[in-house]
Amino acid sequence: MGDYSQYRPLNAADVPQWDFETDVAVIGFGATGACAAIEARGAGAEVMLFERSSGSGGASALSGGEIYIGGGTDAQVAAGFTDTVEDFTTYLKLAGGPCVDEAKCERYGREALAHYQWLKDQGVPYRGNYLPGKVIEPTDDSTLIWSGSEAAAPFYKQARPAPRGHVIQHMGWGGGRPLVDVLEARARDLGTTIVPDARAVALIVEGPRVVGAVVRIDNRDRFVSARKGVVLATGGFVFNEAMRRKHCPETFKLRDPIGDKDDGVGIELGQSVGGEAIHMDQFFTTCPWTMPESHAYGVFVNVMGQRFINEDCYHGRVSRCAVDQPGGKVYLLLDNAHFVQPMDFARMSIAGTGETWDEVEAELEMPAGTLAATMDLYNRHAREGRDPLFDKQPPILTPLDQGPFVALELNFEASYFSFFTLGGLRTSADAEVLDHGGTPIPGLFAAGRCTSGLPAWGHGYSSGMSLADCTFFGRQAGIKAAA
Amino acid sequence: MGDYSQYRPLNAADVPQWDFETDVAVIGFGATGACAAIEARGAGAEVMLFERSSGSGGASALSGGEIYIGGGTDAQVAAGFTDTVEDFTTYLKLAGGPCVDEAKCERYGREALAHYQWLKDQGVPYRGNYLPGKVIEPTDDSTLIWSGSEAAAPFYKQARPAPRGHVIQHMGWGGGRPLVDVLEARARDLGTTIVPDARAVALIVEGPRVVGAVVRIDNRDRFVSARKGVVLATGGFVFNEAMRRKHCPETFKLRDPIGDKDDGVGIELGQSVGGEAIHMDQFFTTCPWTMPESHAYGVFVNVMGQRFINEDCYHGRVSRCAVDQPGGKVYLLLDNAHFVQPMDFARMSIAGTGETWDEVEAELEMPAGTLAATMDLYNRHAREGRDPLFDKQPPILTPLDQGPFVALELNFEASYFSFFTLGGLRTSADAEVLDHGGTPIPGLFAAGRCTSGLPAWGHGYSSGMSLADCTFFGRQAGIKAAA
Repeated sequence: MGDYSQYRPLNAADVPQWDFETDVAVIGFGATGACAAIEARGAGAEVMLFERSSGSGGASALSGGEIYIGGGTDAQVAAGFTDTVEDFTTYLKLAGGPCVDEAKCERYGREALAHYQWLKDQGVPYRGNYLPGKVIEPTDDSTLIWSGSEAAAPFYKQARPAPRGHVIQHMGWGGGRPLVDVLEARARDLGTTIVPDARAVALIVEGPRVVGAVVRIDNRDRFVSARKGVVLATGGFVFNEAMRRKHCPETFKLRDPIGDKDDGVGIELGQSVGGEAIHMDQFFTTCPWTMPESHAYGVFVNVMGQRFINEDCYHGRVSRCAVDQPGGKVYLLLDNAHFVQPMDFARMSIAGTGETWDEVEAELEMPAGTLAATMDLYNRHAREGRDPLFDKQPPILTPLDQGPFVALELNFEASYFSFFTLGGLRTSADAEVLDHGGTPIPGLFAAGRCTSGLPAWGHGYSSGMSLADCTFFGRQAGIKAAA
Repeated sequence: MGDYSQYRPLNAADVPQWDFETDVAVIGFGATGACAAIEARGAGAEVMLFERSSGSGGASALSGGEIYIGGGTDAQVAAGFTDTVEDFTTYLKLAGGPCVDEAKCERYGREALAHYQWLKDQGVPYRGNYLPGKVIEPTDDSTLIWSGSEAAAPFYKQARPAPRGHVIQHMGWGGGRPLVDVLEARARDLGTTIVPDARAVALIVEGPRVVGAVVRIDNRDRFVSARKGVVLATGGFVFNEAMRRKHCPETFKLRDPIGDKDDGVGIELGQSVGGEAIHMDQFFTTCPWTMPESHAYGVFVNVMGQRFINEDCYHGRVSRCAVDQPGGKVYLLLDNAHFVQPMDFARMSIAGTGETWDEVEAELEMPAGTLAATMDLYNRHAREGRDPLFDKQPPILTPLDQGPFVALELNFEASYFSFFTLGGLRTSADAEVLDHGGTPIPGLFAAGRCTSGLPAWGHGYSSGMSLADCTFFGRQAGIKAAA
């Protein structure tokens, strides 16, 4: 067994024998790898797909199977929404914030409708109907939901809002698994050779070109020749504590990483041959505070009793801003008209109650005139349908003035804040891995969460952006590798 | 002329001729490079120092010449302060926040007193006296000042506070230039060969080992053999817009980079041979809002009229938190007892005035009950010597209740917010450049702002931390390279 523990590249001249030979080697069998394989096979390339687990899935299969698509889909039109490529692209760019990759936003903005058709062509079912309200995932088999901050400030002022979360038709939560199943079936039908229980441990190079990979199977190294290219589709690094410590240390205030063995191997493999990793400090987080749905009407304050966000934006954006607040916790304030018992799995606790907001303030041991003044100001303007501080919009903007009142504590360490990493390899809009000077590394492609892509900025995330990135740029990786 | 525009390493076998041969090649002639040269010469190595400008300086020469030193110096003791290695080290770690390099903090914590003696031995003069108050740099020739957040929350609760900003004895601002002059003279006296107008464009490698560098002089490439090692001492990347866009995009909200040609070349050279860059999103910024000194007693609010920091902490920490606030600006609130005309170069403007805080609030077009409620709460507790929200401490904590009142606008784009980058190569506490697996790259050393070091976290910066890092770890680079 060789020592590839630090993922150092192996020179082709040092390869003892080629155990596998193919045109395109795809590493990782989530949605990204599946889409890369489908496209590479479609272009006529031989494709082998190596997956460390015994089957497909990855973080994609743990998701809701929701893909962020806009520009005027059948479901959007049927529900009476107007969406344009321009508004959609503008929103994608705003969502990228300071980390935005404009070329990727523009390309996906232009091609998302065609991508939606492509997904259908692969067999992904869409019922095509719209489910209104503030939902995390549909609990029925509806397939279009609001999944971001489109209708909330500051986004609604710059891009006309429309719902863009397109969910695979599937009864209840958990559409990610059936989505991957459809893509897997398609990749198999097209003749992809799938090698499970094979963990990538090194890339193989010939001069500057990547010509293969070393995979470990049954504790033995096998050498894969990839005549046209290697596609990295291995996910993020949320389960690699050393990488998180080095690159994304803010996440250590949270306790619930989500993913499937996401240990950053693809990022490290890419770096081992000169690939550049960017925005490695960025992460997504969310707490299911909008469940039950009446809680979406609540108001957040930090430990100083200050509001910090328009609470009508995406639950993950609220959560990401929440974990920026000092003091290790925030409070979700609710009145009697909106409070119901929170979900157990959210691990929120009731930190204060009262007949008035002054009593809640006192129970939370905040100085007089903090939380109570915040709620007085909020209610006064909410009655007029305005939020002069954060521009929260009706109907989520509503007075909370029917006591008794409750403050739920969302504690960063104790409550359920799921999180995953967003930083990764810098790639072109054709999914080529770029070096520090911006030049593609010959033979190396990547997509999904081992790259920095559409969901580049934790504060701008919207549900479905990561799977949009995985599926669309996974396809580009397959196309480009096979070319 | 070769094409090293992307700093690709050159194989030693491809070097046409060796134009220079030495034991240790130091790249960059700020404080870091000078200290590396002094130590490498002291260890008996031949040293050549290459500097792209026509003379020494770098960002060090633009600084105040202040070095963060603690643990009980002569100046601290003479002024009646008790400081220990433990408190000093604890503060260094807190200042590193989530980005902290504990090994570097512990090493510098233990050795700072010896480092102080070493600086004196090189000829750096210290008058040894203490200047009280809230000053950015001494305006006389005093040499010990408060230069961080030691006495402010949350730091004072975890580490006993002491002033630790040790400034070279020098009349007025600008001690950085004379500090570099002293170090340059010492490096020259010891026999360092200095080659100015020589810009490093590539490293030279022999297998995994760095064995030299390519420098461009008079538009011709010269090849430097460094038998023992190359030391990178080239500063940060604040003047490289492409690198900032990729790695530190938050800085684009500000307008005043400070440095001396800091284009990140050392970071890119290190990366070109497998070095890892970390915390590239981190930056320092400050606005000279504590000048005149009575303004240090002011209160900051964001555009929602909310306070966001205990204003008694370091001016750079306040400024860094300020630029996190939404709305592109913050306000510094002052009463008649504390307001004087701000310095022109700060480019602050008077955004609102009034006989009461309600009038100021109205002039700023904030909703009634925001800024005025904030100041009511603040003044009410300040009269009791308390700040229950942010734990600001007396005497900086003082009521602002003598009208007329003023709100100064600190606009991120219009006001003077100087900034520089803090991320860079990951190095050991011996200044070895580390690869992604944490293994030293043979023959390559680095220190100062081309590395991530003691000042790792923008929100925790204290004046003198960067020069402490430059001088101390610059020395380690020289020692280790010469070994």
